[in-house]
Amino acid sequence: MGISSEADHPYVPKDLKLPGFVPGFLSQSTILAVYGISSLLVVSFMWILSGRFRKISKVDRLLMCWWIFTGLTHIILEGYFAFSPEFYKEKTPHYLAEVWKEYSKGDSRYAGRDSGVVAVEGITAVVEGPACLLAVYAIATRKSYSHILQIAISLGQLYGAAVYFITALLEGDNFATNAFYYYAYYIMANIWWVIIPTTIVVRSWKKICDAFRAQEQKKTKTR
Amino acid sequence: MGISSEADHPYVPKDLKLPGFVPGFLSQSTILAVYGISSLLVVSFMWILSGRFRKISKVDRLLMCWWIFTGLTHIILEGYFAFSPEFYKEKTPHYLAEVWKEYSKGDSRYAGRDSGVVAVEGITAVVEGPACLLAVYAIATRKSYSHILQIAISLGQLYGAAVYFITALLEGDNFATNAFYYYAYYIMANIWWVIIPTTIVVRSWKKICDAFRAQEQKKTKTR
Repeated sequence: MGISSEADHPYVPKDLKLPGFVPGFLSQSTILAVYGISSLLVVSFMWILSGRFRKISKVDRLLMCWWIFTGLTHIILEGYFAFSPEFYKEKTPHYLAEVWKEYSKGDSRYAGRDSGVVAVEGITAVVEGPACLLAVYAIATRKSYSHILQIAISLGQLYGAAVYFITALLEGDNFATNAFYYYAYYIMANIWWVIIPTTIVVRSWKKICDAFRAQEQKKTKTR
Repeated sequence: MGISSEADHPYVPKDLKLPGFVPGFLSQSTILAVYGISSLLVVSFMWILSGRFRKISKVDRLLMCWWIFTGLTHIILEGYFAFSPEFYKEKTPHYLAEVWKEYSKGDSRYAGRDSGVVAVEGITAVVEGPACLLAVYAIATRKSYSHILQIAISLGQLYGAAVYFITALLEGDNFATNAFYYYAYYIMANIWWVIIPTTIVVRSWKKICDAFRAQEQKKTKTR
């Protein structure tokens, strides 16, 4: 790398120290295309598979697609990050290292190993990732814990997003290389994990309340 | 304060900078006695009050006591901390500032304003605190959302505890003045917010599954 007074990396703040940093090899469009096409394949596979189960509504099939997509994202992408403190030193075009070298342009706390970010990503990868796969199974087999599991994971995703955004604000909200990366990566890539979990919490919350009201009415009739 | 090479505060790590720090005025026993006696009064009041409601089981009355206690702790104690970045400069024996001056001996990240700690405490005070008071009301009036609300708050408390402990580990786990404060404050004062929420999640999870099973059986019979 050589000794230099300038930062040896493309991230902000410029005084972030990343000794041994190796620039990314893949272009932004390649990285996005691999993630986009893989996700599309996974979601298509789940949509077709879920159609073979009986009595599964279209909404539930869409939810199964969401849970497999977000679960694999948590386990593979975020799991790699949580346990790879030196990804920015990766000397080969390792796809998962490339993803985080690129994403760090939107939030350099990833390359900088901010403890709040690592804690949230660790919990997401280890606890929520596998729970998402369980949610796919729970919906397919109509388990009685299906809705409460979906709420539990969604609330975890929302809590993680809250810690993620609040800690950035408290630390000065200056971790993006420029406004494009701030909005495209930091905001747009994360906002879905606020919107979709909120929608799921509202839906499953209502279903749980309905189940208790039905149980209550049944008790009243029996008396 | 004067210029000194030694730390002007009792916290660890010694190189933590707290300009304008004013030592606590109240003794440890005074601080604990005020919290203990206030909590006992609140819990006794809730136990007696909940006895006047019909059809509320003893377990539900105990839960109402827990929710009022933890809710007021979140709103008053943690709410004060979240919005008082300069509590350690407090020049009078302000009880809430004293609490956090004392607790910082177990975890100096409070005085040091660690962003992970502030984010978790802010979410706990603003979102979970009021939700705990709603849980008291929901149990008393047997609302259909009672169990899902209790799970939602408990999972939030567990997620907060996970972020709290994991970030400390990632940052070197060296924030206690000595082993006594480490175990008495950092571990013992927090472990209840792991044990009790876990117990509540397990109980309410089962109740929700029971409600769905009852609904499913009803549908099957109707056919």
